[in-house]
Amino acid sequence: MQVLAVGAHPDDVELGCGATLLRHVARGDAVTILVMTAGQRGRVDGMSRQVEQEEAATQLGVDLRWGGFRDGSVPDGPEAITVIDEAVAATGAEILYTHAAHDTHQDHRATATASVAAARRLPTVLQFETPSTQNFEPTIYVDVAETLGAKLGALRSHLSQVLRQGPVDLEAVEAQARFRGSQGRIRYAEGFEAARLGWDLASPAAAMAPALAFATSG
Amino acid sequence: MQVLAVGAHPDDVELGCGATLLRHVARGDAVTILVMTAGQRGRVDGMSRQVEQEEAATQLGVDLRWGGFRDGSVPDGPEAITVIDEAVAATGAEILYTHAAHDTHQDHRATATASVAAARRLPTVLQFETPSTQNFEPTIYVDVAETLGAKLGALRSHLSQVLRQGPVDLEAVEAQARFRGSQGRIRYAEGFEAARLGWDLASPAAAMAPALAFATSG
Amino acid sequence: MQVLAVGAHPDDVELGCGATLLRHVARGDAVTILVMTAGQRGRVDGMSRQVEQEEAATQLGVDLRWGGFRDGSVPDGPEAITVIDEAVAATGAEILYTHAAHDTHQDHRATATASVAAARRLPTVLQFETPSTQNFEPTIYVDVAETLGAKLGALRSHLSQVLRQGPVDLEAVEAQARFRGSQGRIRYAEGFEAARLGWDLASPAAAMAPALAFATSG
Amino acid sequence: MQVLAVGAHPDDVELGCGATLLRHVARGDAVTILVMTAGQRGRVDGMSRQVEQEEAATQLGVDLRWGGFRDGSVPDGPEAITVIDEAVAATGAEILYTHAAHDTHQDHRATATASVAAARRLPTVLQFETPSTQNFEPTIYVDVAETLGAKLGALRSHLSQVLRQGPVDLEAVEAQARFRGSQGRIRYAEGFEAARLGWDLASPAAAMAPALAFATSG
Amino acid sequence: MQVLAVGAHPDDVELGCGATLLRHVARGDAVTILVMTAGQRGRVDGMSRQVEQEEAATQLGVDLRWGGFRDGSVPDGPEAITVIDEAVAATGAEILYTHAAHDTHQDHRATATASVAAARRLPTVLQFETPSTQNFEPTIYVDVAETLGAKLGALRSHLSQVLRQGPVDLEAVEAQARFRGSQGRIRYAEGFEAARLGWDLASPAAAMAPALAFATSG
Amino acid sequence: MQVLAVGAHPDDVELGCGATLLRHVARGDAVTILVMTAGQRGRVDGMSRQVEQEEAATQLGVDLRWGGFRDGSVPDGPEAITVIDEAVAATGAEILYTHAAHDTHQDHRATATASVAAARRLPTVLQFETPSTQNFEPTIYVDVAETLGAKLGALRSHLSQVLRQGPVDLEAVEAQARFRGSQGRIRYAEGFEAARLGWDLASPAAAMAPALAFATSG
Repeated sequence: MQVLAVGAHPDDVELGCGATLLRHVARGDAVTILVMTAGQRGRVDGMSRQVEQEEAATQLGVDLRWGGFRDGSVPDGPEAITVIDEAVAATGAEILYTHAAHDTHQDHRATATASVAAARRLPTVLQFETPSTQNFEPTIYVDVAETLGAKLGALRSHLSQVLRQGPVDLEAVEAQARFRGSQGRIRYAEGFEAARLGWDLASPAAAMAPALAFATSG
Repeated sequence: MQVLAVGAHPDDVELGCGATLLRHVARGDAVTILVMTAGQRGRVDGMSRQVEQEEAATQLGVDLRWGGFRDGSVPDGPEAITVIDEAVAATGAEILYTHAAHDTHQDHRATATASVAAARRLPTVLQFETPSTQNFEPTIYVDVAETLGAKLGALRSHLSQVLRQGPVDLEAVEAQARFRGSQGRIRYAEGFEAARLGWDLASPAAAMAPALAFATSG
Repeated sequence: MQVLAVGAHPDDVELGCGATLLRHVARGDAVTILVMTAGQRGRVDGMSRQVEQEEAATQLGVDLRWGGFRDGSVPDGPEAITVIDEAVAATGAEILYTHAAHDTHQDHRATATASVAAARRLPTVLQFETPSTQNFEPTIYVDVAETLGAKLGALRSHLSQVLRQGPVDLEAVEAQARFRGSQGRIRYAEGFEAARLGWDLASPAAAMAPALAFATSG
Repeated sequence: MQVLAVGAHPDDVELGCGATLLRHVARGDAVTILVMTAGQRGRVDGMSRQVEQEEAATQLGVDLRWGGFRDGSVPDGPEAITVIDEAVAATGAEILYTHAAHDTHQDHRATATASVAAARRLPTVLQFETPSTQNFEPTIYVDVAETLGAKLGALRSHLSQVLRQGPVDLEAVEAQARFRGSQGRIRYAEGFEAARLGWDLASPAAAMAPALAFATSG
Repeated sequence: MQVLAVGAHPDDVELGCGATLLRHVARGDAVTILVMTAGQRGRVDGMSRQVEQEEAATQLGVDLRWGGFRDGSVPDGPEAITVIDEAVAATGAEILYTHAAHDTHQDHRATATASVAAARRLPTVLQFETPSTQNFEPTIYVDVAETLGAKLGALRSHLSQVLRQGPVDLEAVEAQARFRGSQGRIRYAEGFEAARLGWDLASPAAAMAPALAFATSG
Repeated sequence: MQVLAVGAHPDDVELGCGATLLRHVARGDAVTILVMTAGQRGRVDGMSRQVEQEEAATQLGVDLRWGGFRDGSVPDGPEAITVIDEAVAATGAEILYTHAAHDTHQDHRATATASVAAARRLPTVLQFETPSTQNFEPTIYVDVAETLGAKLGALRSHLSQVLRQGPVDLEAVEAQARFRGSQGRIRYAEGFEAARLGWDLASPAAAMAPALAFATSG
């Protein structure tokens, strides 16, 4: 399956759905992340947030695309929609992850708005939380007990953000996973709001079909 | 996988999620429906709604349990929760379907309330609509193009309800599936609100594992 | 009574409230539609969406105004508000119809935002759904049993949109009317969210008064 | 037109929609109010709240029915629904007014729940606010500039409630009408939430038709 | 200031607002907790949940009242309201804490409903979350960095609930405080929804006045 | 304590929270208001709205800052956020008041959006209503019985707005305060929605501590 995750800045995708993307990777899905800006405004001491993001993508085992917009000024209209449209087309994505609709950061809101517009024909669009999200009421939970550690590792690649007093607090990230897990009746979870989720009740049988055919020919 | 669907009266489960249950049956899941009342108040000309429900369950290929409550007086407290608890335990259900929370029919509301309470430890609880549901905003869509016909067939077993001027209007049921389908970016769908959905990203791989092992040994 | 309906692109007004406008026309109200863009981005094979819209307006029996904005870039601020203000003033509208607030298409959202701002002094502002609307919870229902056929006819004027694989699916439009009808306790309906509805309890008596006076003097 | 308004206690209907009922009366509609309890718990110094309610009904020019339930214990299930069903049938009501769904007083909530259930086939169900209503977001406004005075007069019939320190504060009632009016873009209004409103776009023409016919034959 | 916290079962108040009550105690407020049932259904191996609750109340430094209702059957009507009314009157409470409105446990919902009804004249009513709460969107945050440890200590008094596999998971409680803290822009917080909060902008000056007078007379 | 109130146009802050700011002033807090535009579009007969605002600020006893944006075109992105950031930094504000999120006036919405973004680290952000606010559900109430008169006085400084037929209706402002008061269980109130409120339970004790120490040493 093809998966696309769209975030506003370096680290947003990892924060919101990093451990879930690692589950996709583990099951053999092809995952691409699209980062709308290079995060220039959050730069610290000349560290390159682009390099940090490239390193994190490598750790996650996902492809990386850049939106090329200016940090603080992500548009939510045709310019941004076109960029995401192209990423959907290039990857053949069936599932799209993006920011939640209610977020006090305007780049996050604009990214969410443009992504949902670009995903107009996709059956599954899930929206994740970041520290600036408001009124987030997740209903979809993904078990991340096995991938939370690697998510925290990928976040550490964003060194400029996790340094003392930086905006990313790994302890809070872990507490959040534990809290969302208790809501989802499991231990650690990432939670999502669904713009819509096409729930594929055929998958196990479908997945088995080719394998069985292969077995039969064995 | 074990699936439990809880409805207030004969025909409620078929109306709300009949075509989805047929998808579960088709992929080999074990499905049980629990009907809280025998629908005495909706009886027409001495037709037995229990017999109608039994026939519909046979058509769907699901097991049938009765809650034994009085039509119009389904409780939402410990008495009802215990009955549903027993059904969850007896079936080993991991997924529970029930009425939506906002519904003008009190038996529907009570069934929803007691079901969600009884499902306190289940990772997946989905809620369906009926004609008396209000403010329903589905986010989960199941493709029912292949099972809608059989759903309508099962509804026809509830003869007392689908006769001229009866409360179930098959034409409206089909229009609803078409409308929910267009919302879910497919042709025909049943839509659900999620109290919570534990989204199992491991399933395809897990399903394939034994098959591949078998193939390897072939 | 003067009625103004504001849509983003050719066909939006017909999709959202075409059958209701036909009810207004039938009762003698003067109806104007304002289309914010000429729908250039949705053009197919050189067909003119402007000509299509003019033909549809003629079929509906309504006046047509153009907003003159670029497809994909409808503003939601003073520029757009001024255009709608002028339409309100020129028509003397007391009732305004426009897009719902929650819609994944940005032109729809911008049109809704600007229309509600421009309607700041009107007692009645109703908002309609289109295929890209989200979280729509109608509370106002208009019986369209007698005008649904003519609505579908007007939509067929938008030939570029209803061709095979086009964005407008007439079958889905009819299913929606049937579904909204069942929610509104009638057969076919268009549903609306109300920003506000000034419910005129004086109208029948007021309408009859002059007639009766005339009769008496007859 | 036949109108039914259902309130939990003496004075609730007057508080919530008294001035609107006076508009109905003025246009020739037949109005009935159904009061579920006699308000025994709110009695002061042996004053009869039943007599007060009878006097208020006379002032309003409406018929009065009693539900016969115990103050503080209005049921929301079949017992209450049956009583309201009977009132709907006896009056032939097409429009039903009742309490809003969110109200901290349980008799109000139960009355709202049972009324909405009983109104399952009516096209128009409007819900009003009282001082214990929460999260009320009216979208329907009725102009009560001409009837607010008479509403306050009818409330004064409930002498036990408007005495100093009583629960009904006429000054607050008037402030509320002014505030709801400013929301509805008029001077004084009663505001309503709509469970659903069947908006009759045929009425003026229909109302005029017989009169014109009569005039023509004059 | 007088504070009343109402919970359904032993441990609910500690879970929901234990650390906040400790802040009240620390500033000299008189705090009473009212526990509606003795929690018989949650008993383990004959341990007395009443004794556990008494011990926890002692640790918190608060007074304890019992509602005397049966576990699983807390009423939400006049019987429960009367008990809470009496607690409000006896303590002179100006602030009331209780369960959130949306909770899958019916005793929690009933306690919330009855408490909000009983608090009809209080200016401040805050509602807390427990593990069975749904759709909780806190807006009021209390800094509990200094009292979280003592809250966990009080929860440990409920030995029957915190044993291995018990319903109270102290690790999850701490994670929740950390997560709510990050939402409230502090380190550790308890979050509340406000039915209403009368925000007293006079307090600092008022509080200082007598102290200064005393100082002057020193 | 340092308080910052941000409004779009001259008079918005007074309308929304003028009486509350007067409570802050009365208790010794330092209050600054930031007005994003000079309100050019609302000018009447050459009256200067800037002079009116300066006079109102003087009456309120607060400092005044100007945002310098064009009336009708307040941005909601980095340009506006920077201006508000500077005001937060310059005043050391711990509490920020601004417009509610749902408002039909785009300058109000933009001001709210930018203010909430700029307040990303503040523990308390409260949002007020104006006549164009929609769906406002206040939960925080401030008693303004003693300052409502002075608020109306400050509004009268905005002479161009309160003249006959002007947009500000002082009678409606007073009715609103009375209505919000009855919701908040007091006589006159301003109501607020809380983005978040850090409720400081330490203040009285903290305030008293130095005084007591001084007394002890007396």
